[in-house]
Amino acid sequence: MEYIPNIKNISHTDLIKKILKGDIVSLSRAITLVESKKRSDREIANKILKECLLKRNSSIRIGITGVPGVGKSTFIESFGSYLSKSGKKIAVLAVDPSSSVTKGSILGDKTRMENLVKDKNVYIRPSPAGNHLGGVSNKTRESIILCEAAGFDIILIETVGVGQSEISVYEMVDYFLLLKLAGAGDELQGIKRGIIEMADSIIINKSDGDNIEAANLAKSEFKMALNLYPLKASKWKPKVSTCSSINSDGIKEVWAEVSDYFRLTKNNGYFTKNRNNQKKHWLMQTLNNQIQTDFFSDEKLMLELENQIKLLDSNKTTVLAASELIINSSK
Amino acid sequence: MEYIPNIKNISHTDLIKKILKGDIVSLSRAITLVESKKRSDREIANKILKECLLKRNSSIRIGITGVPGVGKSTFIESFGSYLSKSGKKIAVLAVDPSSSVTKGSILGDKTRMENLVKDKNVYIRPSPAGNHLGGVSNKTRESIILCEAAGFDIILIETVGVGQSEISVYEMVDYFLLLKLAGAGDELQGIKRGIIEMADSIIINKSDGDNIEAANLAKSEFKMALNLYPLKASKWKPKVSTCSSINSDGIKEVWAEVSDYFRLTKNNGYFTKNRNNQKKHWLMQTLNNQIQTDFFSDEKLMLELENQIKLLDSNKTTVLAASELIINSSK
Repeated sequence: MEYIPNIKNISHTDLIKKILKGDIVSLSRAITLVESKKRSDREIANKILKECLLKRNSSIRIGITGVPGVGKSTFIESFGSYLSKSGKKIAVLAVDPSSSVTKGSILGDKTRMENLVKDKNVYIRPSPAGNHLGGVSNKTRESIILCEAAGFDIILIETVGVGQSEISVYEMVDYFLLLKLAGAGDELQGIKRGIIEMADSIIINKSDGDNIEAANLAKSEFKMALNLYPLKASKWKPKVSTCSSINSDGIKEVWAEVSDYFRLTKNNGYFTKNRNNQKKHWLMQTLNNQIQTDFFSDEKLMLELENQIKLLDSNKTTVLAASELIINSSK
Repeated sequence: MEYIPNIKNISHTDLIKKILKGDIVSLSRAITLVESKKRSDREIANKILKECLLKRNSSIRIGITGVPGVGKSTFIESFGSYLSKSGKKIAVLAVDPSSSVTKGSILGDKTRMENLVKDKNVYIRPSPAGNHLGGVSNKTRESIILCEAAGFDIILIETVGVGQSEISVYEMVDYFLLLKLAGAGDELQGIKRGIIEMADSIIINKSDGDNIEAANLAKSEFKMALNLYPLKASKWKPKVSTCSSINSDGIKEVWAEVSDYFRLTKNNGYFTKNRNNQKKHWLMQTLNNQIQTDFFSDEKLMLELENQIKLLDSNKTTVLAASELIINSSK
């Protein structure tokens, strides 16, 4: 585990300087500080972040989602290698502890993303383990900022295709890419519909060998389904394509699509508008987290809370009376 | 619309007295106060709730979930009528605006729950429209308390089978009942698995006519699937059964199962333990809501927030600097 830095040996101003020069070890140290739950670490992290936020850059943020087994790590390996070869610097972050970035090349299974980990233009950072979502999305946002300050051009943020984490990632990226398999059955059903609405492109992965026909069929089905949705605020019409991550087929085309999207939205103003909305959202989340942290770190209040919970258990108070009492003693 | 009370004509102490005597009009008025966003309404609501919370009762809370089309309203009609005939008083609440309680008999479509609405032992209350989930779950909890104070024996809480609202309902009921259709395909897949884990019983609805065979097949499939899950903390082994809400077949058996559950969990202590945990959870939610409300209703802070958002939009500050500034000026 390389991620626990001995921060005492270096001042935060030195760390900032090194990050801005693209030093990977310093970047990793800073991300570890961002992820730390220790108040003193958080304070240093905030100082670093404030400097890094000031650095202008033109990086783009791409979210990648899909259910386990859809081939996210193979896709990222293939897509990342292609981008690196065209001279881009790529950072890969993961939101969930169960993502393939975490389970893959970094922690054990060396067969995943084996080329990408060796690539000097690529930085892969697994997500912190055992984390709670509310906090994680802010920490991922902060890690994005640090990667951008370190000079990465494209930030890929991976999430597993289940529930709240996808929405968090959607809210911090410019482009949202949904990986699918042909014939998985439930693509167009129920809860998943929300995810399809968020997607800027749907990519049918594993379109190789015997699978090509089914992949093409799935492609036309998704295309038809997408026609039912109203035009997006970005004016972008979501694309459906097939690819084989293992053979690197269709990867170039995915990048061409992504480039089209950025050309469109930088021209029509949506790119900036969306980033501004995301900043507002981030600010609100930061404020909410902060007021909760402040409240629940007050020792006297927490003793009172414990006491009230005991009274609740023995039916000697009610939730509302307990809440009122605790709120009043906080003022 | 009968739900906007002219509260000024009656004191809250009178309202409490009437609720405790089981007066439905007063109950409805109190629930409207609970759902109100006006601070003055909330204050009266809290006074009423605190009194009502003190009333001991032995009511039970049953959550009912299932995707749209599964027949929730027909099931509730049939189940509710059966319970009413056996002398129970039933309250039916809905969490989501899109639930069948809301869309059904109350607002328009009179064919839904047509017997239940006329039943003197039954109180049906749709959910507030256009609401946000975080707040709703607390409001539903409070409505439950009011119904219990008004003497209802069984509270049925309906939610549509999509995402977060099911979890909220799960966290406020004693028993969680999942309605399913035979052959709907995706029952055992992906995200839905979490819902199956929460269920105390799975009921295959619409088991009538040509559908009986498929329903029985689905029943044995679900039984097998449930065998894969570890024993619940309640020590209850979830049941799978079929029913035809339209013919009222299997409804008696559902109630027998529910009764078995309550016998078991009241004996082994789980019932009380679970209620206590739910109260703790409710307290934490109430505290979180309250500190947010207090913070975001400070006018000076909100002006500062607006100002900081403008600076963010024009890249003259950063999220972290803005947040720090707002937090500091709140102290």
